[in-house]
Amino acid sequence: MRLIDAIHSPEDLKKVPREQLPQVAAELRDEIVRVCSVGGLHLASSLGATDLIVALHYVLNSPRDRILFDVGHQAYAHKMLTGRREQMRSVKKEGGLSGFTKVSESEHDAITVGHASTSLANALGMAFARDALGQDYHVAAVIGDGSLTGGMALAALNTIGDAGKKMLIILNDNEMSISENVGAINKFMRTLQVQKWFQEGEGAGKKAVAAVSKPLADFMSRAKSSTRHFFDPASVNPFAAMGVRYVGPVDGHDVGELVYLLERLKDLDGPTILHVVTKKGKGLSFAEADPITWHGPGKFDPETGESSKSSAYSWSNAFGDAAIELAKADPRVFVITPAMREGSGLVKYSQVHPNRYLDVGIAEDVAVTTGAGMALQGLKPIVAIYSTFLQRAYDQVLHDVAIENLDVIFAIDRGGIVGADGATHNGVFDLSYLRHIPNVKIGLPKDALELRGMLKAAQKLGGPVAIRYPRGNTTPVPEGTWPDLEWGTWERVQGGDDVVILAGGKALEYARQAVKDLPGVGLVNARFVKPLDERMLRAIATRARAVITVEDHTVVGGFGSAVLEQLAAWNLKPTVRVLGIPDEFQEHATVESVHARAGIDAPAIRTVLAELGVDVPIEV
Amino acid sequence: MRLIDAIHSPEDLKKVPREQLPQVAAELRDEIVRVCSVGGLHLASSLGATDLIVALHYVLNSPRDRILFDVGHQAYAHKMLTGRREQMRSVKKEGGLSGFTKVSESEHDAITVGHASTSLANALGMAFARDALGQDYHVAAVIGDGSLTGGMALAALNTIGDAGKKMLIILNDNEMSISENVGAINKFMRTLQVQKWFQEGEGAGKKAVAAVSKPLADFMSRAKSSTRHFFDPASVNPFAAMGVRYVGPVDGHDVGELVYLLERLKDLDGPTILHVVTKKGKGLSFAEADPITWHGPGKFDPETGESSKSSAYSWSNAFGDAAIELAKADPRVFVITPAMREGSGLVKYSQVHPNRYLDVGIAEDVAVTTGAGMALQGLKPIVAIYSTFLQRAYDQVLHDVAIENLDVIFAIDRGGIVGADGATHNGVFDLSYLRHIPNVKIGLPKDALELRGMLKAAQKLGGPVAIRYPRGNTTPVPEGTWPDLEWGTWERVQGGDDVVILAGGKALEYARQAVKDLPGVGLVNARFVKPLDERMLRAIATRARAVITVEDHTVVGGFGSAVLEQLAAWNLKPTVRVLGIPDEFQEHATVESVHARAGIDAPAIRTVLAELGVDVPIEV
Repeated sequence: MRLIDAIHSPEDLKKVPREQLPQVAAELRDEIVRVCSVGGLHLASSLGATDLIVALHYVLNSPRDRILFDVGHQAYAHKMLTGRREQMRSVKKEGGLSGFTKVSESEHDAITVGHASTSLANALGMAFARDALGQDYHVAAVIGDGSLTGGMALAALNTIGDAGKKMLIILNDNEMSISENVGAINKFMRTLQVQKWFQEGEGAGKKAVAAVSKPLADFMSRAKSSTRHFFDPASVNPFAAMGVRYVGPVDGHDVGELVYLLERLKDLDGPTILHVVTKKGKGLSFAEADPITWHGPGKFDPETGESSKSSAYSWSNAFGDAAIELAKADPRVFVITPAMREGSGLVKYSQVHPNRYLDVGIAEDVAVTTGAGMALQGLKPIVAIYSTFLQRAYDQVLHDVAIENLDVIFAIDRGGIVGADGATHNGVFDLSYLRHIPNVKIGLPKDALELRGMLKAAQKLGGPVAIRYPRGNTTPVPEGTWPDLEWGTWERVQGGDDVVILAGGKALEYARQAVKDLPGVGLVNARFVKPLDERMLRAIATRARAVITVEDHTVVGGFGSAVLEQLAAWNLKPTVRVLGIPDEFQEHATVESVHARAGIDAPAIRTVLAELGVDVPIEV
Repeated sequence: MRLIDAIHSPEDLKKVPREQLPQVAAELRDEIVRVCSVGGLHLASSLGATDLIVALHYVLNSPRDRILFDVGHQAYAHKMLTGRREQMRSVKKEGGLSGFTKVSESEHDAITVGHASTSLANALGMAFARDALGQDYHVAAVIGDGSLTGGMALAALNTIGDAGKKMLIILNDNEMSISENVGAINKFMRTLQVQKWFQEGEGAGKKAVAAVSKPLADFMSRAKSSTRHFFDPASVNPFAAMGVRYVGPVDGHDVGELVYLLERLKDLDGPTILHVVTKKGKGLSFAEADPITWHGPGKFDPETGESSKSSAYSWSNAFGDAAIELAKADPRVFVITPAMREGSGLVKYSQVHPNRYLDVGIAEDVAVTTGAGMALQGLKPIVAIYSTFLQRAYDQVLHDVAIENLDVIFAIDRGGIVGADGATHNGVFDLSYLRHIPNVKIGLPKDALELRGMLKAAQKLGGPVAIRYPRGNTTPVPEGTWPDLEWGTWERVQGGDDVVILAGGKALEYARQAVKDLPGVGLVNARFVKPLDERMLRAIATRARAVITVEDHTVVGGFGSAVLEQLAAWNLKPTVRVLGIPDEFQEHATVESVHARAGIDAPAIRTVLAELGVDVPIEV
């Protein structure tokens, strides 16, 4: 019997003799590898954080003490130690566990996450709440070095240093976010790590940490700030400068030493950063060697690392390939990513055009406004970004780009329901949060060809242009294919004037399936949401009895609303049925399942057609 | 004749003998005081930055070289030196100059601003553009210490340090943003300033700077990074740690020394921060003594500082007074502001409840997510924020607050057109960017009494609740007055079933005026935008021939769209006229003027009524 078989809660963990904690961590890691081998899960980061999580749950008392995981995708060991080990096979599956921490899933999950850099502000709020209510639990935030490049985390640190509330910040420094890490803070952390005592290898390192730990105990009793410099191995330390006590760096895979340190640090007054160095993919040789590939791998053999590589051509690849050609044709094209080189299909682009490629780290606001600066000085930047992450730069789109109508193209990936990542990652708000910003144009290509047509049209058009495509695959197009497409023109897919369906992007596929045996129903590829194709819409609305809008997007303020607004302006009154994602957060499940529940898939559209009096044959 | 009378461009400035530059600055300051004495302008920060601006324009060649001003409200001297001196009386007036820098206003304005912390990312983008296009101009960003607490600026610095592009960052350290400055970075900067050589007063300081400048020249020729520490007066310097060369702090009112330094720093490779210490209100004794009051004073006597204090009771005060009582009644109430203590009416609150008040600096994202952390641990936080600034925390509202339906109240000030501050500050997008976020409720009180009713109802209701009120004044209510109000219920103001006007908040005033002599027209105080009062709306829409919605908000995706969506869901088809701010950015002018142009004021509503066949008497 394994040790972890007897652990169903943090209390059970505390019964394990201290010297056996490394074995617990090893068993958890084995289990994580097995769980993740089905594919689509966050393997490397969860392996890297396992020792740290064991130590945290050994020392702290969750759920009374609050342990916050930034992003939350590294917390599989946390889930397993808090009663969810046997449900791990259900992670990211419908009705199963979330891929991240989630308040409504477990009393041990302190925050609901998915987006990066939020843990420090949350922790700060919790520390204030604790003190305001006269309570005395611990608050510990685990944040990766990647998340720390996010401005929100840095700004929170600024207030944390100032407020002086007691809290622990564990900087889980694994030397990379999802892509390779970038930025000055990262460089600085590398400087810390070249400290001699840290370089002497794991064995000697252990001794070195012990040597640090003794004076630390000493320090606690005397608490003289002058001694703090002992724990600042580099003479230049921005954390200490901000007023946050800095300890580290220490080996994040030495559970015993982590326990030793946490036991002593947790009771110190004021905020303390423990800088812990970990390896993504820890314990799995092939993942350690290539943690980017193994960040969220497909299905693989846990022994050999052999994986069946998907040969599908993703929308991200379609964009990346198009961007390479655009940059070749025009020296003013420049692509910016907020730490999503792989996810946005930009690996090849970054190699072909290294001088016109910028990764700003997890800082979506900086990505957008850097694009604004480029556009002001004559470049033609493309900000490649996920729909859910562009939410973090809403004001930058509005204030820095749209007011002056700057030539910035937003290549918005993962538009619509993303499925397994769930509520925090669904891209179902972008039409609503972009549509009301003056000067912004919005297109929804149905395939890679139309994506290229829109990119080309956007360049011609100028101003801020958003091109939004879904997670998933599309059909590759031959290099050099650049169809002409006039911005703002819809496409008639099927005739029919009485009842007409308007659908763009992914929703168009569903609508197409829904009407394939219904030649009397009109279908339009409503590929532009702003501006609408007013000529075609007017012609349709003048004659139609009913119009159905379908969108992979919330029904509030989206494409359907745009149609309603336009019809109201014309005082045209066909019946309008707006199909889309209802006004609730959608939990993780397959994309198809969410769409079916939301009522935008082909059967749902057929039901609406039947309600509108269309003679819809019952399918067998 | 004054020196500035001969200066119509930066070229003219360069003809002034170097030793007369202080006189130029003094004359500019006199002019600024005169211009600002009419009231409503940014006096203190513009006075503080004048010497620096003179030096920058003397050394750099605008518009070829790009000078970026963060926020842009400190740049009056810049406007005056770039051909706009004679138009200064028109600042913030309709058709006149903007209160901020604005690209479309002058080729010398490098960025269009209003919101803080954007200059560094913009400057980074410009440096990339310059190098990508093989050009060689200078890029210099002037950023205040307050703006530097914004995460976006810190995150940009992270990439700036990493990218190593040649650029100048002038840290204009005036020891305060608009409120008193807060945060750890500010503390750190104070540490820098207590360096002995800097403390020896202005005279000695000058000598000290000269002493620094010599080795600096030396440094430039040798460019050894080891000598850099000479310029790091503190041993701990986060800027240097981030890979940005740090020089300072120097006296920001010594034009000669600033010129000397800028001439030498501008050609250094890589990014350089020049830390300049200035006094807000410089040269005007009463403004120096109380720069918060003199940040944007009303009308005053330039000699004596006597000003006619407005006795009006603002919406901000109404909120602040209500918050004091709420916090008194419930120990869980906690108010958070992102650097807007004065603007949000919280001065008194912060004195009465200092332990349940937090200013996080200019970091709206941190404000919202700190609120989330508080709510998770049992507090009932209120985030007091301007509509335009909540734009910067859109994702935090969605991801950190709304997904878990946390009890956070957003007290949204400056909702609707704000007038003189113009396009960057209008709060006309909030209904659209909040309405589509699941779980968010939205109310628009018509007066201070209704504001209190909504605050109380929001507490009862739980979850994220946005209460939005305009800039301007309202009627005070006696302490202890807390009317009952059921969330989601509208109020019939005037009977009439055939044509019915739905309007909430400020728009209700206009609608009331419009129908005061038209008893047959229905009028509803549509004070809740989410949820709508479905019962009342259904009753109205079933009987009405026409419904008019009026909102001080964009017509795209706002209140009118909410009504259209609901009517489409019911398949009810009255004629609906949506009145609101058109889908264009609105330039600065009086609120009334913008509303008239937009077509939401009383005469505009009457015109629409007439179009709908209502017999509207022509007014004399």
